[in-house]
Amino acid sequence: MNAKEAYETLIIKVKKLSYILSARSLLAWDQRTYMPRKAIEFRSKQFSAFAEYEHRFITSEEFAKLLSKAEEGNWPKDSHERMNLFWLRRAHDRMVKIPLDLQLRLVRKSAETEVIWREAKRKEDATLILPHLSEIVSLKREVARHLGYSDEPYDALLDSYEPGLKAKEVERIFYKIKGEILRLLRKVRNSSKKAPVHLIHGHFPAETQREFNLFILKSIGYDLEAGRLDETTHPFAIRVTPKDVRITTRYKENDITDAIFSTLHEMGHALYNSNLPEEWFGEPVGSAASLSIHESQSRFWENIVGRSFSFWKVFYPFLRAFFPYFWEVSLEDFVFAINGIKPSFIRIEADELTYNLHIVLRFELERALINGELDVKDLPDRWDEKFKELFGIEPRKPSEGFLQDIHWYSGSFGYFPTYTLGNIIAAQLLAKMIQEMDLYELIERGEFKPIVEWLKDRVHRHGSLFLTSELVEKATGEPLNPTHLIGYLSQKVETFYG
Amino acid sequence: MNAKEAYETLIIKVKKLSYILSARSLLAWDQRTYMPRKAIEFRSKQFSAFAEYEHRFITSEEFAKLLSKAEEGNWPKDSHERMNLFWLRRAHDRMVKIPLDLQLRLVRKSAETEVIWREAKRKEDATLILPHLSEIVSLKREVARHLGYSDEPYDALLDSYEPGLKAKEVERIFYKIKGEILRLLRKVRNSSKKAPVHLIHGHFPAETQREFNLFILKSIGYDLEAGRLDETTHPFAIRVTPKDVRITTRYKENDITDAIFSTLHEMGHALYNSNLPEEWFGEPVGSAASLSIHESQSRFWENIVGRSFSFWKVFYPFLRAFFPYFWEVSLEDFVFAINGIKPSFIRIEADELTYNLHIVLRFELERALINGELDVKDLPDRWDEKFKELFGIEPRKPSEGFLQDIHWYSGSFGYFPTYTLGNIIAAQLLAKMIQEMDLYELIERGEFKPIVEWLKDRVHRHGSLFLTSELVEKATGEPLNPTHLIGYLSQKVETFYG
Repeated sequence: MNAKEAYETLIIKVKKLSYILSARSLLAWDQRTYMPRKAIEFRSKQFSAFAEYEHRFITSEEFAKLLSKAEEGNWPKDSHERMNLFWLRRAHDRMVKIPLDLQLRLVRKSAETEVIWREAKRKEDATLILPHLSEIVSLKREVARHLGYSDEPYDALLDSYEPGLKAKEVERIFYKIKGEILRLLRKVRNSSKKAPVHLIHGHFPAETQREFNLFILKSIGYDLEAGRLDETTHPFAIRVTPKDVRITTRYKENDITDAIFSTLHEMGHALYNSNLPEEWFGEPVGSAASLSIHESQSRFWENIVGRSFSFWKVFYPFLRAFFPYFWEVSLEDFVFAINGIKPSFIRIEADELTYNLHIVLRFELERALINGELDVKDLPDRWDEKFKELFGIEPRKPSEGFLQDIHWYSGSFGYFPTYTLGNIIAAQLLAKMIQEMDLYELIERGEFKPIVEWLKDRVHRHGSLFLTSELVEKATGEPLNPTHLIGYLSQKVETFYG
Repeated sequence: MNAKEAYETLIIKVKKLSYILSARSLLAWDQRTYMPRKAIEFRSKQFSAFAEYEHRFITSEEFAKLLSKAEEGNWPKDSHERMNLFWLRRAHDRMVKIPLDLQLRLVRKSAETEVIWREAKRKEDATLILPHLSEIVSLKREVARHLGYSDEPYDALLDSYEPGLKAKEVERIFYKIKGEILRLLRKVRNSSKKAPVHLIHGHFPAETQREFNLFILKSIGYDLEAGRLDETTHPFAIRVTPKDVRITTRYKENDITDAIFSTLHEMGHALYNSNLPEEWFGEPVGSAASLSIHESQSRFWENIVGRSFSFWKVFYPFLRAFFPYFWEVSLEDFVFAINGIKPSFIRIEADELTYNLHIVLRFELERALINGELDVKDLPDRWDEKFKELFGIEPRKPSEGFLQDIHWYSGSFGYFPTYTLGNIIAAQLLAKMIQEMDLYELIERGEFKPIVEWLKDRVHRHGSLFLTSELVEKATGEPLNPTHLIGYLSQKVETFYG
């Protein structure tokens, strides 16, 4: 068997595996939407069976042999084949490097800690959770050791979510935006203007909200015959197959905007998933490039489009039609209300500006934890201290501070930076887009198709043929550059608080 | 490796396979409930991947070796181990015997013919479909040849649905009931009484019907936290895992009873599925015994319980509470209306008595087709002729005759007899139950738990540890005996038409 034959055999096998594994997405969707409560225990066993099947396949001798043989081929740089092999090699090596026993211990410990985290958060009891978090950090450090790194342990974990990215690079970027954001935040504080946030509160029946959200989705071009909108506590987007990309949202009856921005966010993920090359489905290159690229798509629609004046110029009449309450609120006031900037404790409720400070904080803390420079027992104090430093306010209870997010307690370290990287990439795409088309004019006319097409052409259709940094450069003509996010945020502050 | 070790290794592997394959049930449920329309093509590919995975596993050399080794063990008759090996051997041999190429041709041809069947039925055009049905019959005859048989080709297909059963035995049983049913039908014809069927028609909003159906399910003890009730054109029950057994029904707004009896029918299947031994899940013996046993459970609840006077004595006040319309209908009239007997063309709309004549007709015809005694081109005429003979009326168009059911056009030959066998078994279980408990008194008091427990003890908890005939004998103390069905039906005719 030559390299080409080995490659083809391998890809056929991988595709078959992927079709089996794609059922896992439906299991996940179902678990969070319509699964009967008591099914949970067996559902976990189903997931374990899939994980073991995948693990056995990817670590098998046959897989390793085919992969090595295929790699002997003289595949051109950036070729489809080379990238497929890159991702398969990466998956294989990572699975082989981490002992199965360690993987299983981590899965068990995370599942257990998640449950205790919920209790600790409810009871506002730090002592309950810290020993468990400590164990998780130890296990993750062990994982980092097995995966290997050149500069610092945290890099090995960061790489799991953002292939090739180093903590030093994140530090450099975050250092830059931190200063600028703090500067903008001072400007907001010194302004006499205040966003009329109370205006978006009232009573908005969930059923009507659902209709309005469906109306937005259809207007933008999300295909409801190749997707669905359901309701869950934590909104998400999931691709079962290329023509089956589902999203969920949640309706707060006292807040009209919560569902709208959740829906737009998940729709951004969904449009990306739907525009990945259908014929590559099941191959590694047929997947999304990275978490940060994914997040750039969701943030683009949620924030850049969804909070723009242009967007509401076209949708506000319809919002009024669905909810006559808004006849009492001017368009200008409404748009200011959804763009208000104010330091607050909870990340997922934060505005576009301070959101990134939340991420900076988490990045610095999780990096220190994994690199062994911060002990878990000191985390609560260090959190509050740093929070005060950045936001000027201090959490009054654990649930407002280090206990608010599930990530660490479910074993996710190195994930947080991708959120702000997503914001940076979204703003960079925006800058390029504005050079090439009259973006806001299109939005005002409700013409979203050219926008979706642009994103498809620059980002979606490439799947994971390029790493994040390459893809950003290809799409925008320059390397990852946080200046555009700062520019975008400055303009926002100027508009509303200038 | 000795036989015991081989057995244990094999079962561990089979259980893991089953957990993966269990996701297929969710794919099937989703396809018929919430799947977006355009997802269908990729969904089919997902199913193909699962089928291939299963096929490769069960026909693998490793599987065959472990199985042969395990069979060398001295497993006692009726032991858990022996039956597991029996089912695995059966699955292996059947898959090995039929060439993969033939299997694939059959799958493709059936999928194609199903589509043409829909068109032919809509257009009432026999010529459109007959050549395709002819091909399917040829392919099925080929399958029978590969599977092997001692008496007649049809046996090989019948065995697919009802392991161990022979056409001669079905013929013997059906011959007996055919005569008795025709005798009872004459009695009905000669009676001056007529069921007031018009009374169950009116306008009954689907949403209220749904609530009433949920109320019935809860009252009987179907656990909605380990199951669901959704709406589909063709109602079905499906087990994803032991604590996840879902059913569907359909609401006809002009007919209150359609949904109720569909729901009760599927609930019967679901109770069986839910009471299969949880700890055997994934092993062959953890499955239902056979289609006819399954059907006995659905018919027991739909007909024996659901159409009884006792059942409505307890539920009629609630039906009136949900639908005040029924204050104008007496309980006696209502119960007669749902027990009316009248020859009609469509099997799925038939009453309890004539239903079995529909099955006798299909059995005789499909047996003749597969055994080569009837040519497909003569099927339409033979159908009408035989129908007239049995029912005294003649179909006016193909959709009322040989085109009404999907079974043959999707490649199912040998399936139909299980429906009437289910009725026979249900009546036999009833006869035994009545000896041991005051069944109708329990129903009248709304105490369904002891009834479910009895069925669980005699039938459900045994999984497929016994073949149909053994299980029936174990549960009722006598071999399969159609006399009880005749007795039950005679009493019904006597009650309403006597």
